[in-house]
Amino acid sequence: MPADVGYGARAPDSRSWPALEALVSSASRVLLTRMLASIGNPALQFVLWNGEEIPQRGDGRLPRIVLNDFGAVLKLAGDPQLRFGEMFTAGRLEVKGDLAGLLELIYRALPREDGGVSGAWQLRDFFAEQRNSPSRAKQNIHHHYDFGNDFYKLWLDQRMVYTCAYFPTQAMDLEAAQLAKMDLVCSKLRLKPGDRVIEAGCGWGALALHMAKHYGASVQAYNISAEQMAFARERARLVGLDGRVEFIEDDYRNVSGKFDAFVSVGMLEHVGPEYYEDLGRVIDRVLADHGRGLIHSIGRDYPCRLDSWTERHIFPEACPPSLSQMMAIFEPCGFSVLDVENLRLHYAKTLEHWLDRFEVATGTVEEMFNPAVARTWRLYLAGSLAAFRSGNMQLFQVLFSRTGDNRIPWTRTAL
Amino acid sequence: MPADVGYGARAPDSRSWPALEALVSSASRVLLTRMLASIGNPALQFVLWNGEEIPQRGDGRLPRIVLNDFGAVLKLAGDPQLRFGEMFTAGRLEVKGDLAGLLELIYRALPREDGGVSGAWQLRDFFAEQRNSPSRAKQNIHHHYDFGNDFYKLWLDQRMVYTCAYFPTQAMDLEAAQLAKMDLVCSKLRLKPGDRVIEAGCGWGALALHMAKHYGASVQAYNISAEQMAFARERARLVGLDGRVEFIEDDYRNVSGKFDAFVSVGMLEHVGPEYYEDLGRVIDRVLADHGRGLIHSIGRDYPCRLDSWTERHIFPEACPPSLSQMMAIFEPCGFSVLDVENLRLHYAKTLEHWLDRFEVATGTVEEMFNPAVARTWRLYLAGSLAAFRSGNMQLFQVLFSRTGDNRIPWTRTAL
Repeated sequence: MPADVGYGARAPDSRSWPALEALVSSASRVLLTRMLASIGNPALQFVLWNGEEIPQRGDGRLPRIVLNDFGAVLKLAGDPQLRFGEMFTAGRLEVKGDLAGLLELIYRALPREDGGVSGAWQLRDFFAEQRNSPSRAKQNIHHHYDFGNDFYKLWLDQRMVYTCAYFPTQAMDLEAAQLAKMDLVCSKLRLKPGDRVIEAGCGWGALALHMAKHYGASVQAYNISAEQMAFARERARLVGLDGRVEFIEDDYRNVSGKFDAFVSVGMLEHVGPEYYEDLGRVIDRVLADHGRGLIHSIGRDYPCRLDSWTERHIFPEACPPSLSQMMAIFEPCGFSVLDVENLRLHYAKTLEHWLDRFEVATGTVEEMFNPAVARTWRLYLAGSLAAFRSGNMQLFQVLFSRTGDNRIPWTRTAL
Repeated sequence: MPADVGYGARAPDSRSWPALEALVSSASRVLLTRMLASIGNPALQFVLWNGEEIPQRGDGRLPRIVLNDFGAVLKLAGDPQLRFGEMFTAGRLEVKGDLAGLLELIYRALPREDGGVSGAWQLRDFFAEQRNSPSRAKQNIHHHYDFGNDFYKLWLDQRMVYTCAYFPTQAMDLEAAQLAKMDLVCSKLRLKPGDRVIEAGCGWGALALHMAKHYGASVQAYNISAEQMAFARERARLVGLDGRVEFIEDDYRNVSGKFDAFVSVGMLEHVGPEYYEDLGRVIDRVLADHGRGLIHSIGRDYPCRLDSWTERHIFPEACPPSLSQMMAIFEPCGFSVLDVENLRLHYAKTLEHWLDRFEVATGTVEEMFNPAVARTWRLYLAGSLAAFRSGNMQLFQVLFSRTGDNRIPWTRTAL
């Protein structure tokens, strides 16, 4: 039967391949064009395995995403938020040129997504309490922070500070900027010798040791990442601060005692909004009458979920809050917000440093794990950089006291 | 029939007065003791018209409230929040000693009142939109701000700035502190010559004139108080700034044009939370792409209503918001909060100055109006001072930009 007449099932033969290719090509065009429209039509170009460009804008300067097979097109078109990263990790999707720049284009074009009102969000809320319960929190934190201290040493600063740095000048190096961030936090908290400090979520312990060494504070620092705590304790012992800094491997909900200052840098993202009021009660329980508190967290300009790739592959159950969401910590529990600073561009700068270091270390990461792991982490760092540059993410430092405490600073001059 | 036997109706006779007095006295004791418990048992003492002290604490140093008749006791016990002020105005209740100090005691003892969840609050919400509609807003504003420019001149600074001043040092005088506040606002907004500024709720026009004179801005300033606008226009003409500052007697909802900066100092208290998202849309409509915005407002540590006396007699339909409430302006409309500063103690200091000046001018106010008006305003100023001292009220300056605008300041150093 000739290929060009009749209908019904036909065995593919050599003459049908060009037609199949044309079909795949036009399907890719339709799918990718629709998908681009659904994400706000960022000015970028797809390049198929056969060199075809979609859309055909005739602008050679557009950033390019190469798709290496039709299956990658189908997956990307079906769920771009999740599949872009998965195809990138698998090497089935490649970005030519500046990865962070392309992702910033995408973030800036993305339509606003009000997670707070969708049915999916409400369904999520229904199960939310279990998702950041103490036992689940331990698994969630283990997934990311126990990935290997040797791995993080490749691209963090020497003190292993894995949160937004503070750059008094843009040219400052990362080591100095992480020190400047710790000093900024301590000065906002007005730390003085003898102060008892509780730290919730202390990472590898740099801030706790800094507060003890440079401000004379005694610190109890909580964290549920086993690898981080082993590292922190060893470092405390080495620098002779293990008498003044106690690293406790436990959930923030189990803190006890009375403290002059409460500090949490980069933990709130993992607490979950459904636990904010509980966190407020925990702080209320341990903070002295004239105590000072500071929470430093990635945030949002409005409540919305993390993108599904980051939530599934990078930070399970994480949720950077908007300021209205954060207020659930303070408003029900008798606290007064004194000062909020948005350090978004400082996180972009921090990520530039991390990404630069990571790219230099890519070969080592590939040897340590495999190329897919290296691609995943490169995408996560570049995507985070793009998110802070584009305003998709914010960084809030919120300083607070108890309501009606008049021992607060008169002005910001001391900062 | 002897007074000490039998039951039933009796005509009062001279022998019954001591019994009636004892009855009134013990009723007063029960009512006032219960009422004190309901407001958190502040350490104060009532003194009845006959010299009796309730409670009998034997501590002569307690602040004293004199009640001049049993009717005042009944009213106060029935609704202390509303009647304390009304009896004070009427001269049926007097405070011996430091009025603001006594009110601070009361504020600090008051149990937390979560207005956000009560049925009354929900009922209020049901009618809320009408209560701050453009026509109702005009009435509400007229009630307070059209009370007479000559009256306000008696106790405000020479520029007639009727909002929280900023005292770089506590000893600064009020004139300088109001200038410092205006400079603080302008520096947060990074005003520069040629900037077009829209001001919503401009009072007697001091800030608009300051921005034009000292920062080279051209300003459109909106206000619905007729008396204030007449004063502001006259002053603009006198200082030759009427070409660069346009005072427009209209509702903030009717602003139009495109502006480099949006500023509102002391208007949000009168907008009503149910209109915050509308206000956000108004700002979105008039702010240029790289525009900067600042809202300065009395606030709260958590959502709750104004006390009923202030709402009925001083500021109809006013509602100082908590930060979570304020976020309804920014989060739905594509804005990014850059900086929040709480200037609560600066408002307490401002009110100390206003109250001092008002007390000096009391005789003039009594002549201008009558002693009841003088008492009402003294109570309002002393009560506001107490509210800021005790943390019952806050003062928030919120600086914002559009989401993702990277022309924001790198640090706070410029402030």
